[in-house]
Amino acid sequence: MISVPAPPSTSPSAPIDEELHALHAWWRAANYLSVGQIYLMDNPLLRRPLEAEHVKPRLLGHWGTTPGLTFLYAHVNRAIRQRSLRSLFVTGPGHGGPGLVAASYLEGTYTETYPAISRDEAGLRRLFTQFSFPGGIPSHVAPETPGSIHEGGELGYSLSHAYGAVFDNPDQLAVTVVGDGEAETGPLATSWHGTAFVNPARDGVVLPILHLNGYKIANPTVLARIGEEELTALMRGYGHEPHLFTAGFDEEDPLEFHRRFAVLLDEVLDRIAEIKAAARAEVEAGREPERPRWPMIVLRTPKGWTGPKEVDGQRTEGSWRSHQVPLTSARDTAEHLAQLEAWMRSYRPEELFDEEGRLCPQIAEASPRGELRMSANPTTNGGTILEPLRLPDFREYAVEVPAPGATLAEPTRVLGTWLRDVIAQNPTTFRLFGPDETASNRLQAVYEVTDKQWNADFVPEDRAEHLARAGRVMEVLSEHQCQGWLEGYLLTGRHGVLSSYEAFIHIVDSMVNQHAKWLKVTNEIEWRRPIASLNYLLSSHVWRQDHNGFSHQDPGFIDHVVNKKAEIVRVYLPPDANTLLSTFDHCLRSRQYVNVVVAGKQPGPSWLSMDEAVLHCTRGLGIWEWAGTESAGEEPDVVLACAGDIPTIETLAAAELLAAQIPELRIRVVNVVDLMRLQEDTEHPHGLSRSAFDGIFGRDVPVVFAYHGYPWLIHRLAYRHDRGSRIHVRGYKEEGTTTTPFDMLMRNDVDRFHLVMDVIDRVGDLATRYAGLRQRMADERTRARAYAYSHGEDLPEIASWQWGDGGDAAAAPADTGGDNA
Amino acid sequence: MISVPAPPSTSPSAPIDEELHALHAWWRAANYLSVGQIYLMDNPLLRRPLEAEHVKPRLLGHWGTTPGLTFLYAHVNRAIRQRSLRSLFVTGPGHGGPGLVAASYLEGTYTETYPAISRDEAGLRRLFTQFSFPGGIPSHVAPETPGSIHEGGELGYSLSHAYGAVFDNPDQLAVTVVGDGEAETGPLATSWHGTAFVNPARDGVVLPILHLNGYKIANPTVLARIGEEELTALMRGYGHEPHLFTAGFDEEDPLEFHRRFAVLLDEVLDRIAEIKAAARAEVEAGREPERPRWPMIVLRTPKGWTGPKEVDGQRTEGSWRSHQVPLTSARDTAEHLAQLEAWMRSYRPEELFDEEGRLCPQIAEASPRGELRMSANPTTNGGTILEPLRLPDFREYAVEVPAPGATLAEPTRVLGTWLRDVIAQNPTTFRLFGPDETASNRLQAVYEVTDKQWNADFVPEDRAEHLARAGRVMEVLSEHQCQGWLEGYLLTGRHGVLSSYEAFIHIVDSMVNQHAKWLKVTNEIEWRRPIASLNYLLSSHVWRQDHNGFSHQDPGFIDHVVNKKAEIVRVYLPPDANTLLSTFDHCLRSRQYVNVVVAGKQPGPSWLSMDEAVLHCTRGLGIWEWAGTESAGEEPDVVLACAGDIPTIETLAAAELLAAQIPELRIRVVNVVDLMRLQEDTEHPHGLSRSAFDGIFGRDVPVVFAYHGYPWLIHRLAYRHDRGSRIHVRGYKEEGTTTTPFDMLMRNDVDRFHLVMDVIDRVGDLATRYAGLRQRMADERTRARAYAYSHGEDLPEIASWQWGDGGDAAAAPADTGGDNA
Repeated sequence: MISVPAPPSTSPSAPIDEELHALHAWWRAANYLSVGQIYLMDNPLLRRPLEAEHVKPRLLGHWGTTPGLTFLYAHVNRAIRQRSLRSLFVTGPGHGGPGLVAASYLEGTYTETYPAISRDEAGLRRLFTQFSFPGGIPSHVAPETPGSIHEGGELGYSLSHAYGAVFDNPDQLAVTVVGDGEAETGPLATSWHGTAFVNPARDGVVLPILHLNGYKIANPTVLARIGEEELTALMRGYGHEPHLFTAGFDEEDPLEFHRRFAVLLDEVLDRIAEIKAAARAEVEAGREPERPRWPMIVLRTPKGWTGPKEVDGQRTEGSWRSHQVPLTSARDTAEHLAQLEAWMRSYRPEELFDEEGRLCPQIAEASPRGELRMSANPTTNGGTILEPLRLPDFREYAVEVPAPGATLAEPTRVLGTWLRDVIAQNPTTFRLFGPDETASNRLQAVYEVTDKQWNADFVPEDRAEHLARAGRVMEVLSEHQCQGWLEGYLLTGRHGVLSSYEAFIHIVDSMVNQHAKWLKVTNEIEWRRPIASLNYLLSSHVWRQDHNGFSHQDPGFIDHVVNKKAEIVRVYLPPDANTLLSTFDHCLRSRQYVNVVVAGKQPGPSWLSMDEAVLHCTRGLGIWEWAGTESAGEEPDVVLACAGDIPTIETLAAAELLAAQIPELRIRVVNVVDLMRLQEDTEHPHGLSRSAFDGIFGRDVPVVFAYHGYPWLIHRLAYRHDRGSRIHVRGYKEEGTTTTPFDMLMRNDVDRFHLVMDVIDRVGDLATRYAGLRQRMADERTRARAYAYSHGEDLPEIASWQWGDGGDAAAAPADTGGDNA
Repeated sequence: MISVPAPPSTSPSAPIDEELHALHAWWRAANYLSVGQIYLMDNPLLRRPLEAEHVKPRLLGHWGTTPGLTFLYAHVNRAIRQRSLRSLFVTGPGHGGPGLVAASYLEGTYTETYPAISRDEAGLRRLFTQFSFPGGIPSHVAPETPGSIHEGGELGYSLSHAYGAVFDNPDQLAVTVVGDGEAETGPLATSWHGTAFVNPARDGVVLPILHLNGYKIANPTVLARIGEEELTALMRGYGHEPHLFTAGFDEEDPLEFHRRFAVLLDEVLDRIAEIKAAARAEVEAGREPERPRWPMIVLRTPKGWTGPKEVDGQRTEGSWRSHQVPLTSARDTAEHLAQLEAWMRSYRPEELFDEEGRLCPQIAEASPRGELRMSANPTTNGGTILEPLRLPDFREYAVEVPAPGATLAEPTRVLGTWLRDVIAQNPTTFRLFGPDETASNRLQAVYEVTDKQWNADFVPEDRAEHLARAGRVMEVLSEHQCQGWLEGYLLTGRHGVLSSYEAFIHIVDSMVNQHAKWLKVTNEIEWRRPIASLNYLLSSHVWRQDHNGFSHQDPGFIDHVVNKKAEIVRVYLPPDANTLLSTFDHCLRSRQYVNVVVAGKQPGPSWLSMDEAVLHCTRGLGIWEWAGTESAGEEPDVVLACAGDIPTIETLAAAELLAAQIPELRIRVVNVVDLMRLQEDTEHPHGLSRSAFDGIFGRDVPVVFAYHGYPWLIHRLAYRHDRGSRIHVRGYKEEGTTTTPFDMLMRNDVDRFHLVMDVIDRVGDLATRYAGLRQRMADERTRARAYAYSHGEDLPEIASWQWGDGGDAAAAPADTGGDNA
């Protein structure tokens, strides 16, 4: 294990020729299998001359990055065997799928996982044919690939995933190949700063290998063209000690470049072992280790290394033309076919496989054994090592609710007390991630038991600010980094929560897409065991960004995630503290979901006792009899529905106004916590049957629905239930600025007065009978706005956010927005 | 102008005390006005002792970053006056709104723009009161702020915006303050590499100033805690020569730190002038200048510099506690009120403003004059300098369409020929941006007239690959960077297009949010003139990512953008090459929109002649009589609607199958180009009236709608028109992998056979009368899949993508996906 370092002066063993021969043969085999996967559907061992019909009709896959990946994999394997390293291999250039499938096949894992892909000629034929073939396997390093936690379809997250994987995994090495294409992305560019966060004693080690093959699809890469001096400076600036290595540009004997790289890798791993040992010694001595300068490697090779040097008279090896399939007409022209055959034979398959197509023993031996094989590392199939969290009973954190709305609480602050104890009881398997907003989102109770992990420089005041070299809270002002770390942490069998401002979680829209896709596919792969859900706590939400203004007002992340598969996506809008506790307990127990929870942080009324909250959350939605005026057995005249904490307040206030002013009106109030309940049961596992929906929303009753986000989503979800377009939705319609909370509601017509007007407009003959009331409501809006514009704050009776008989509740403290970004 | 550099040995003039006194007074005035905006609603000149009722009831705003911003602004003003620099000021920490409003007020621009904010005591009272006040102005550097092109509400885009602003603006300097918080974001981290792209002769200059004030909301910042050595290395790695400057941590006389910074800024600007002069000399000598090492400045100051040192016994200046409002109880406690008064008086307002509240003349003179004032720079109000593009007549680029579907074309390749000539005719006001996909998206005709701009290192082969030091095409593997550059380019009065893979444009979801919000707000600000629209060309779309697999399949960007205001958002799905040309001509003429155009790049049938295409695009949707079987004057039995190139092919194929098999069925085919047409006219300016909708889709006729993206969007858009839920939508339902194009359609039930089945299931008694046909369709699906799974490609008759009488058209070239990522 990496925890038992060999001192650098006696490096495990200097590479000897025999070993390097085997390593080279392993590399040739991996490259041969990669080319075979891209091109062939028959004649996998080239026992016969290659013919057009052996070549697939559609040539798909990415050769360019592959030989660099297999080169590194082969060398890491050598190190694993010599040092019994526990390592995983994160493939930033995930397009190089054939290389990783080949490695897994050579290690035997592939056949153990997919017995039909046997270790003989028939298996090789199937291995080749299935690749990028309908009904076969994807072209990238997909969930189907043993050993992968990272597809690399969308680029930029390899280092973040790697850091996430090694947190709390002190004996885990993550060899992480960063493509020079992906290195241009923003998320990758900032993820190098993981060095400022990872703890050298308590976390594992990320070894980044920047693979400079020089080209993207059609362009050179920036990092390959800024010169060694700047590149070295850049890596030093990122906290690394870079080691530059170049191969493949001249006629160097392969044994020589293998020897050179083996020596370099030994040197780097020795240095890592030194760092680990020193860090552990510090901890044993009761001190905290300083941040080391972590080594990293820059590997410069030609793109498409060992592939055709020229195709159709154009330079191919060492050019962007190697990016995908260098010989596009292998099935159509004799010239390309011959070139393909020569290329494949250059790996000397007859030396690699025996007559039956079995890998020669001395090559097989170049792979590590058992779980030390990177393709069989249990960490990469996180569900197999996942342990449920020890969860304190959330009921014990309940706020007292003597009557609905009678007490005020800050929901996220209450949740923080529970999360504090979740952290205390799960000291190595749960982390809280956030872009500098944990305290702003009022989860600061967690700092009673843990700190923010920080391994950059310290000043004395930091200790009082909960910064420490080890801690359960990870804060960096990069939603990308938080998301990537959390994904890596979850994929390797742990648990976590990402808390963020609602508007800015859109920054990771594309990342959550990719993670949801990964979950969807792994649901269909038996050997991939379920992992903990990806949990979002979105606070500082659209209705309470009145102080930060329009740029901070966007509830659209919900809309974004509901486009993913229904079996993956869950959205919760708990209206108060107790429902938030109950919701989060459910989320932390769940597996394979993306749970989006939107909750307020400002003081707001509590509506439900804990028993009521548990029942309400279990049902996902329900009628709040105490807030309505209907009589048993009769259909109501109108349903006031709500989802979200602020719309719930306004709906209840509107119901109270209506009850007082139109006593004959039979009002039903429905609150929705689990947004997916609005769908039909044919559309989502949480959906309602037609009759269940009608039982709650009435059959032909007008519904005035006050919703937290963009109103169209309610229509979309309830589409199949909404016969006759009877549901009228109010929500955020992209109107906002720096103003008061109530003015935000008025600008979007979600305020209590407008909800009353909506009811009058839509129910029976109220519009004629209650024209005066309607006008009074409009006048109230004018008065509220005039007061805000002259006094700079909301009318006191509105700003208190109180409702019903909550008159004895403590007034909401003045909110200065002082803890907001 | 910066184009007339003074040689460094005779720097414009060494700073003299008098000048520095005025500068310091200007800075004090700016800080005073900033604090006043955050806190006061009366007594703006402190003529009377400060009382609680002078303080706003809600204290909103960000003090922490503000004094650094005003310090820099004051110093840049000195340089502008001495050198007649044309500069703009990009405020990365855009939360520091009060500072920029204060600067604009001191320069006179604010009063010129908003006369009510007069330059006297009454104006000051209004200036203070309006800030972060209901009915007033936002707390950030918003569109309302003269001189701003960058709100900085969501962080990370300042440098990208700045580079966009200086492209093709050779005499423009963009002083760009990068906050050390935003510097942690991914987009910002990669945007430093703008140095590898900007042309020193033909573009302007970005001068980044990294403001290390050390803290975010609640944490230190990474770049403030990695030590000077690493920070310097990082900046060198980004291609910069860093200049470190520290002030504010000791009792240094302000004149001394002003002098030190003035000397440093002179040195930096001299160096920039040298670089520019050398670059121009190279160009004049017929050579291309090498990439210089651009200077940048690291400014280290306390956070909340000059603010309260301690509040309630806790360190405040130099701490995260200064981030927002350091004295939160100024209205509520005598102690905070007294501290606020002392703080404000420390700027000595009586020396800054005269009895009437007018700025003292010697301070006013420290501001530049006229358009050299950064708050009055016309470049920052791009609409005022925007010139329409010279657009070649797109009709001349039409493909011949002798009959619908009779010819094949690659729509984006055709568009490329027109874009080529757009570029040729607009050599300094139009650029094409893309993440390494311009050729992959088949726009390569542009390389006949221009190159890809690249200012990193060159190798000889690059010239043949269209890389050059100056060019109209900007490619970097960062959607963030492309988007930020384009936004900066548009905001400063130019035009452009971003072409991207459809799935990965989600990477900039949050950026397009912010830009759409900017456009919405500027629509409401008279003095902000309309800018060119933000145009997306999304190709390599969901239906043709069969080869790259599931990670590359996502049509949800459309859903994302339609959440923004209807007056801003336009979505077009042109079904063929001629409609694409017509659509894009419209987009490049439009203003203040976000135009999303999704179009195919693979060979596909052309349906409409150019005259027909223009008419169809003008209407936005229409009945394709030639594809249907209805008789004039009769309602059809079914409407087959489609939007998107591939769904259009399948719909037309389904219509043909139905016409042949069910001759009595009256079919109408409707194609939708402009998706917004589906809305009701009350919802969107492009929407249809109820009667117009019924005229096209029939009144009570079943509609089977094949849509490019997630099917729910059609329901959402057509919601108000869809009485009785008669519209049945097929679209992408998140099913995909690496497979064939037709299998992608089958997996999502959008294929022609399934559309026929849908019609049979939904129209009259067809289900009983045509059970056999329905079964045959199901069998066709089985056959198509079996063929694909055994042959690795689609049935030839399907893969040709042909339809109708197009039998004589050239077969589609084999698509190997070879140009795809």
